[in-house]
Amino acid sequence: MSDLAKTERFALAIDAMGGDDAPGMVVAGLALAAERHPGGRFLLVGDEARLRPLLAAHPRARAVCTVRHASEIITGDMKPTVALRLRQSSMRLAIDAVASGEAAGVVSAGNSGALLALAKIVVKTLAGIDRPAMAATVPSARGDVVMLDLGANVVCDSRNLVEFAVMGDMFARTVLGIPEPTIGLLNVGSEELKGDDRLRQAADMLRASPMGARFHGFVAGHDIAAGTTDVIVTDGFTGNVALKTGEGALRLMGGLLRQVFTGSLMAKIAYLLARTGLDRLREWLDPRRYNGAVMVGLNGVVVKSHGGTDALGFAHAVDVAMNMVTHGFTAGIAEGLSKVAERERLPAPGQEESLIEGLASPLAQAK
Amino acid sequence: MSDLAKTERFALAIDAMGGDDAPGMVVAGLALAAERHPGGRFLLVGDEARLRPLLAAHPRARAVCTVRHASEIITGDMKPTVALRLRQSSMRLAIDAVASGEAAGVVSAGNSGALLALAKIVVKTLAGIDRPAMAATVPSARGDVVMLDLGANVVCDSRNLVEFAVMGDMFARTVLGIPEPTIGLLNVGSEELKGDDRLRQAADMLRASPMGARFHGFVAGHDIAAGTTDVIVTDGFTGNVALKTGEGALRLMGGLLRQVFTGSLMAKIAYLLARTGLDRLREWLDPRRYNGAVMVGLNGVVVKSHGGTDALGFAHAVDVAMNMVTHGFTAGIAEGLSKVAERERLPAPGQEESLIEGLASPLAQAK
Repeated sequence: MSDLAKTERFALAIDAMGGDDAPGMVVAGLALAAERHPGGRFLLVGDEARLRPLLAAHPRARAVCTVRHASEIITGDMKPTVALRLRQSSMRLAIDAVASGEAAGVVSAGNSGALLALAKIVVKTLAGIDRPAMAATVPSARGDVVMLDLGANVVCDSRNLVEFAVMGDMFARTVLGIPEPTIGLLNVGSEELKGDDRLRQAADMLRASPMGARFHGFVAGHDIAAGTTDVIVTDGFTGNVALKTGEGALRLMGGLLRQVFTGSLMAKIAYLLARTGLDRLREWLDPRRYNGAVMVGLNGVVVKSHGGTDALGFAHAVDVAMNMVTHGFTAGIAEGLSKVAERERLPAPGQEESLIEGLASPLAQAK
Repeated sequence: MSDLAKTERFALAIDAMGGDDAPGMVVAGLALAAERHPGGRFLLVGDEARLRPLLAAHPRARAVCTVRHASEIITGDMKPTVALRLRQSSMRLAIDAVASGEAAGVVSAGNSGALLALAKIVVKTLAGIDRPAMAATVPSARGDVVMLDLGANVVCDSRNLVEFAVMGDMFARTVLGIPEPTIGLLNVGSEELKGDDRLRQAADMLRASPMGARFHGFVAGHDIAAGTTDVIVTDGFTGNVALKTGEGALRLMGGLLRQVFTGSLMAKIAYLLARTGLDRLREWLDPRRYNGAVMVGLNGVVVKSHGGTDALGFAHAVDVAMNMVTHGFTAGIAEGLSKVAERERLPAPGQEESLIEGLASPLAQAK
């Protein structure tokens, strides 16, 4: 079966060994995802001896999978530098499959730092992109929105932020299905004079870009949950803090509500009466529904699932990856970038090697 | 009455004209606060003709107030540079009263930028403090915690962060009544190697400081609502985004819950049954209970109330200011700084002029 894999084309390569409850949670999640993506073929990479019995128990997963044996595992506490040396790890072999074109994308619930480093080195950055970013959907009063960067780049310049906007725009189209997404730049306030030079410069560049009409300007922290824009652009430090702060606030509220509805017999009856609405609310805010941070800006779809997730959460991460693969996310970004480049009279991706004269553009710096 | 004011000592000077619903909301709020602080005397600064009838309607406020007439008003949309020129504005005269020692602190619901600028210039920075910061309490699963900076300093270095920790420590003692507060430094993760040099350097300095035993190390966004530490230290950009993101998430959840409990007759009955607990929850998370951001690091207590607040929210801002005044917040910071200075073998505040040799210390840079 391992030999067969080499001649097949896969939608996704799946790192079967990453995550707290791997590989059981991965195979169970794949069984759930297979229902929703009947046409998708998956390359399941991991310890064959452990995967066989799991696949036997999940015939739906087995029907869509090809197993590739990996003799090594990148553990959660392993440093990226160490992880990079394990050439036979499940994560590495899954990423290799994307780099070779065997699979269009990869999903892993393993070590984030290792995945980020491996993806950058092995899958490589898309022409025209200086820095890949992490993106994910978050809930808002006006439906799901996408926020990026969530931690791949702790320090960013204005051109990185513009690139993030291009990638977020494409994310909103392909994953959220929004035809004309609006874009906001996260700042300490919405007034034009707020923030530092880097932010004001990025705002000027976005206003002048082909996305200009859909650029809403600066947004503040409360605009994330308000859904003021479909895309929230920020640096990796701020995005990471904002994502986790929002999650923390929702978790706090969830915990307090649980206390209220278990506090007395009357409250328990109240819960039963309001159950439909409360359950729908809980389902909508379920962190598993937001599982699957996407590493955008690479020559392939790379999705990071939360390490502590269960089968349902992992299936959602697979959904995200499948949406991106089937809607041509990677090609869409390249197109979006070439439009920005055209407007800025800069060479389009692929031609940037000829640009020697100065201008520290992300398009010029592209690998 | 205006003449009398000059010989009196006031706990607080109150800017009567700042805020959307001023001066009505201010006088009503003062009446509420007066009940809780029967010993406090207040200098109420604003348009005397408008204040007299309001005080007549609120005898409790009138009993604790002295009115000082101010002929000008700093509006919400005024630029700080313009606001600084209005020498007879209610905000300016209230701040002047702190600078002259006539009042120990000031509360204003007016223009934030103007208050920040005026306070820095008129009240002046405490010896040993490089940069004042904005601090406020936020709700957590383990009770209220304090976070700073919330926007006064968009860019900070490691020594600014250490100063914020000293001030946050004192805030937690005086306003929250926590005898031995724990301190966390906001980062993208809790691992020691995360973040940039500036953060790692600040962490090293905090570990070596007299607060070292209570320094928890790095905390991530979700630790704010989890209440992992009593004090959350961060730069003004990140703090502002985190504060507003958390508020936004709680507001989103509140709005969704309202929909659930008004969605059907059964849900309405459920609300009535669980009302005690739900109302207590709402009360605890009420933004008005968190109203009153404190500008820390000045030679006096400066509290900024939200401009859109009502009497209850303004009364809370007065509470915060009164707690700081009565518990010797300003003197406490000076003492905390001198301890850090001792440990670092740097001159204590007040002696730093003699330090000529290099070391870009906040203590050395003090004005």
